Amino acid sequence: MPKVGRQALLRRIAELGRRLSGLGYDAYYVTNPENIFYLTNYFFLQTERPLALLVTARGELALFAPMVEYEHFSLRSDLPVEEHYYFDYPGEVHPVKFIAERIGELAKRWGIESLALETRAGAAGGWGYSGPALADLLGQLKTAVEPRLVEDMRLIKDDEEIALIEESGRWAARGLEIASGLMAEGRYDWEVALEASLELSREMKKAFGQDYMPLRESVPGFVGFRGQIGEYSYYPHSISAPRPFKRGDVVGIGAGPEVGGYYSELERTLVLGGASQEVRRYFDAMLELRRAALDALRPGASAAEVDRAVRARAERLGLAEKLRHHTGHGIGLGFHERPYLDVGSDEVLRPGMVVTVEPGIYVRGLGGFRHSDTALITEDGYKLLTKYPEDLDELMV
Amino acid sequence: MPKVGRQALLRRIAELGRRLSGLGYDAYYVTNPENIFYLTNYFFLQTERPLALLVTARGELALFAPMVEYEHFSLRSDLPVEEHYYFDYPGEVHPVKFIAERIGELAKRWGIESLALETRAGAAGGWGYSGPALADLLGQLKTAVEPRLVEDMRLIKDDEEIALIEESGRWAARGLEIASGLMAEGRYDWEVALEASLELSREMKKAFGQDYMPLRESVPGFVGFRGQIGEYSYYPHSISAPRPFKRGDVVGIGAGPEVGGYYSELERTLVLGGASQEVRRYFDAMLELRRAALDALRPGASAAEVDRAVRARAERLGLAEKLRHHTGHGIGLGFHERPYLDVGSDEVLRPGMVVTVEPGIYVRGLGGFRHSDTALITEDGYKLLTKYPEDLDELMV
Repeated sequence: MPKVGRQALLRRIAELGRRLSGLGYDAYYVTNPENIFYLTNYFFLQTERPLALLVTARGELALFAPMVEYEHFSLRSDLPVEEHYYFDYPGEVHPVKFIAERIGELAKRWGIESLALETRAGAAGGWGYSGPALADLLGQLKTAVEPRLVEDMRLIKDDEEIALIEESGRWAARGLEIASGLMAEGRYDWEVALEASLELSREMKKAFGQDYMPLRESVPGFVGFRGQIGEYSYYPHSISAPRPFKRGDVVGIGAGPEVGGYYSELERTLVLGGASQEVRRYFDAMLELRRAALDALRPGASAAEVDRAVRARAERLGLAEKLRHHTGHGIGLGFHERPYLDVGSDEVLRPGMVVTVEPGIYVRGLGGFRHSDTALITEDGYKLLTKYPEDLDELMV
Repeated sequence: MPKVGRQALLRRIAELGRRLSGLGYDAYYVTNPENIFYLTNYFFLQTERPLALLVTARGELALFAPMVEYEHFSLRSDLPVEEHYYFDYPGEVHPVKFIAERIGELAKRWGIESLALETRAGAAGGWGYSGPALADLLGQLKTAVEPRLVEDMRLIKDDEEIALIEESGRWAARGLEIASGLMAEGRYDWEVALEASLELSREMKKAFGQDYMPLRESVPGFVGFRGQIGEYSYYPHSISAPRPFKRGDVVGIGAGPEVGGYYSELERTLVLGGASQEVRRYFDAMLELRRAALDALRPGASAAEVDRAVRARAERLGLAEKLRHHTGHGIGLGFHERPYLDVGSDEVLRPGMVVTVEPGIYVRGLGGFRHSDTALITEDGYKLLTKYPEDLDELMV
């Protein structure tokens, strides 16, 4: 079963405890599901029901959760935890009041991760939730918002994490291979997506064995197109398209199956049937932007300068106005996380950071041109954790 | 193409304008993707990049969005909108500063929907976002947090909305039918889910025609199990299971395909092969709780009393400690939304509200027993918008 081991989880909790002590807190109040997973291997479906993990500076854990999560933690995590359940939201006693009444007994000086719970916006920031501000209920307890404590720890990936992301990358490549083989004129993108995901999931289950289950998803592997077909691929965040594939389509495909809770990102621009000169020109320009990004990717470089290198190249190519987004983003437990490869980022790349590299060019009526790969920053440069053909001739379907 | 028409969107915007004027605001700042969709039929993938729709009291719209959404609004919505794009997050000028600098020109007295943007927690409350508080940047502008203005309007569904939810319910039933036919000992839940979703999607596309595409999803129809198989169905929010179906399994299945942006919820407890006396007893008890909920469902009843009726029945049956959640929740554009059928709810049921009815019983080692249906509150009672067999003998696979 590919997942981060108990020892690594205990190390993370101990490190968080040290950081808490250093800041003068007795405990930390964590609500982001990815951060809770990072510390425990426990994942849950976030809804309007507040759920929080409390971590004391001494490394003790307490879980505050709705009964819909009863005993679910211990199915997923073998760490000791003190469990406190309220029945449901909104409840006769509001869940946040239930929590506030109990956490005073656990610690006096609190770091709180979530501004959402400190205000009235709720744990999930949606789902119709409303409630009182946790901070208002805590009376004499000392609280401070420290949104980035766990996020900061997640910035640098250790060997176990890198292995999981790389494993995700291998399956992503297999997913693209399967899906490319199923694409054909007249077929819908979601038909190919569902068929390819089925085959990919079967292969993953077979490889990982009888006890394997994804930790955050209900289907082991997913590969898809998100409607990025021909003129619809012009929208980088296209959602769906009404029509099937047709000859000449510029197509965006992507995969990044969850492995042990971690994700990679692998995307390719494919061309169906045959490429016009115009398509070849934009495709090659996209490869040039990609080369500019990869050439700038190394420890000590700022995340901003990678993005600036891409923008400068796009300007020289006369394509700056066809960019629609920055060069990439961190990835791991989050699909998008820090550091952002963006001109406005203030972060410096360091070994162990994992980022996507995905400059894109978007041409109205024709489509979007974007490859995305997942790259690990190493001691002396970078290493791609996703490997798949890049050239148009190899990506012609 | 099944979706809410332009006239209904304009009526909603006009109604919001009236409510804004009544409260003394010139404009409203909307960030919840479902609320933006409610007003425009435009949906987008929410990430770390702030996106907001501004609605003035006179019914004018302005969109503040990242370039990744460039021209996407007008692909999805035919409403006139003033568009303001920033390049990307975090950017050399933070997106929230970009927005704050411009909105002063549009209106002076603002209602702000999102506490997240008012504080530093970001539009999406996740994805590694951080940034300044919008309210801090607005200087002399008068702002107030009014989180529920659009949510309040969404509480009562009109005929167009009800028709879309009912259409979703019809396809949900078809999804359960297809998936039930594919279930067999030795198969994995995700295999059946992907195969059934493919068939369901094909039938939906065929029925809705050439121009049809889902507005918020990439695959037209999805039906699945979320790992709710045998002992794993004991966890109401199970995510995945490692093993295939086996004879005697109590299985949770669910569907609620998006139609025109709206969802229904249809869930059934199925039994594979044959049911023990114990399974029959819990199944029948679940039906009895369901009957208690439906008997209490009528306009004028409080949402709390429906849940109290279920709890009282569970206590009489000696099963109160096997409940894990309240009776149901509102549904429509949100999977979960107000009103909650919960003892702590302060809302009264009114004609046009749509709620799920889904009391459940959970038995460790054996499984979960829960049907969920989507019910419309009518003038004189309720009408089920999902219709599917309920009795064990019809649900034996």
